[in-house]
Amino acid sequence: MYILVTNDDGIHAPGLLALYQALAAEHEVAVVAPESEQSAVGHAISLLNPLRVKKVTKNGSFFGWAVSGTPADCVKIAVAEILPQRPDLVVSGINHGANVGINVLYSGTVSAATEATIMGIRAMAISLSTFREADFRVAAAFAARLAGELPKLHLPAGVCLNVNVPSLPQNQIKGVMLTRQENGLLVERYERRVDPRENIYYWLAGINTKRQVEPGTDFWAIENGYISITPIHHDLTHYACLEALAQMEWPEE
Amino acid sequence: MYILVTNDDGIHAPGLLALYQALAAEHEVAVVAPESEQSAVGHAISLLNPLRVKKVTKNGSFFGWAVSGTPADCVKIAVAEILPQRPDLVVSGINHGANVGINVLYSGTVSAATEATIMGIRAMAISLSTFREADFRVAAAFAARLAGELPKLHLPAGVCLNVNVPSLPQNQIKGVMLTRQENGLLVERYERRVDPRENIYYWLAGINTKRQVEPGTDFWAIENGYISITPIHHDLTHYACLEALAQMEWPEE
Repeated sequence: MYILVTNDDGIHAPGLLALYQALAAEHEVAVVAPESEQSAVGHAISLLNPLRVKKVTKNGSFFGWAVSGTPADCVKIAVAEILPQRPDLVVSGINHGANVGINVLYSGTVSAATEATIMGIRAMAISLSTFREADFRVAAAFAARLAGELPKLHLPAGVCLNVNVPSLPQNQIKGVMLTRQENGLLVERYERRVDPRENIYYWLAGINTKRQVEPGTDFWAIENGYISITPIHHDLTHYACLEALAQMEWPEE
Repeated sequence: MYILVTNDDGIHAPGLLALYQALAAEHEVAVVAPESEQSAVGHAISLLNPLRVKKVTKNGSFFGWAVSGTPADCVKIAVAEILPQRPDLVVSGINHGANVGINVLYSGTVSAATEATIMGIRAMAISLSTFREADFRVAAAFAARLAGELPKLHLPAGVCLNVNVPSLPQNQIKGVMLTRQENGLLVERYERRVDPRENIYYWLAGINTKRQVEPGTDFWAIENGYISITPIHHDLTHYACLEALAQMEWPEE
């Protein structure tokens, strides 16, 4: 396959290198990724600023293109302008940190995969559940195997896979679990600080994850030693609610 | 009701002022909005940069808080730090330009409403379908009426309304249509340019909307003179696909 690899941690991130190496053993792999870290950019694209594209060589490991934009920008411009042919698959990651639950919405890693499916290209996002020292080997090996399987899964149009791997040695991983996105409320707070010029500023802090996590969810899976695979799509319509609302009286215009 | 108004065009945008005025006639309204335009930021939040908050007085029309972040940041910090009480409703808009189809994913306007539902607060996003001279009066009046109705709709937890109003005089609007998100593929291209220092850069250009638009969708509604209301949620799981995949053999770990 001809595979496009991207991420949101930036083209110099070790998770991207690990992913590239695992995939390049069997496939032709192109790298088009943000030139700088783009965490929590969600499904942003650049409309107000133009994009710049630079060729980058990564320690002789690979060469790729660094884009002055978001992960979704990378997928768009890779397909439209950079790559000599349309990729068969887009793989985004390996993200340093899980993308589960509500955080999927904020995830640049996932948005790159979603962007690919919008363009009609198969895609998966892969993240490693740790914010500390990361060993990407287990996740990279799994990404490579799943990439090979992906064409056989016959995912419906517009569906991609959001994969999260627990940060455990291979022999402690309990298996693969198909999951749904966890939707518990986030409890967040801001840290209020004063800068040297006596101006106040705020840091988003302390996302509270001390809550009951339902079995069957992405969050539960990685907390319990499973690789989580969630099929996700980009149609935000709530169909049950649409049907209910359609039965109601609406104000006349 | 105590209503929080925000947007993605920035606190100085005329669409926000029109919305404020329409809602403030009947409700207590607080404004917390980005200090600058945030178009196409999607569901981005600020993790790498702190937020700054400034009190702003808008020509004596209202005072509000300008935040150095995205629409989702505005909702988060408004509820966590700025507002004296939790709002009963969050209204995001009025956006200058429709937020229909795939563009819903890129929309900062919609992400503010989604963020509110994540926090358990009722919400709607409202957009006016024009990029040219905008008359926000029809949309503002509709927003005010719908805001009054919203508590009676008994939307399920996590569902908000994405409202799009065609840019027509009141008497040419055909009515309200409950719709689903249109999911046609986008065909986009980039304009390649050379800067004065002979570096190449790219502008995202020409989103191609010349396609068959299916009846029943948000896109179709506004193209045909209807106010479109789409119930949306933030669970990206594709449940039918989840069921199908769960039947399959998966690689053992």
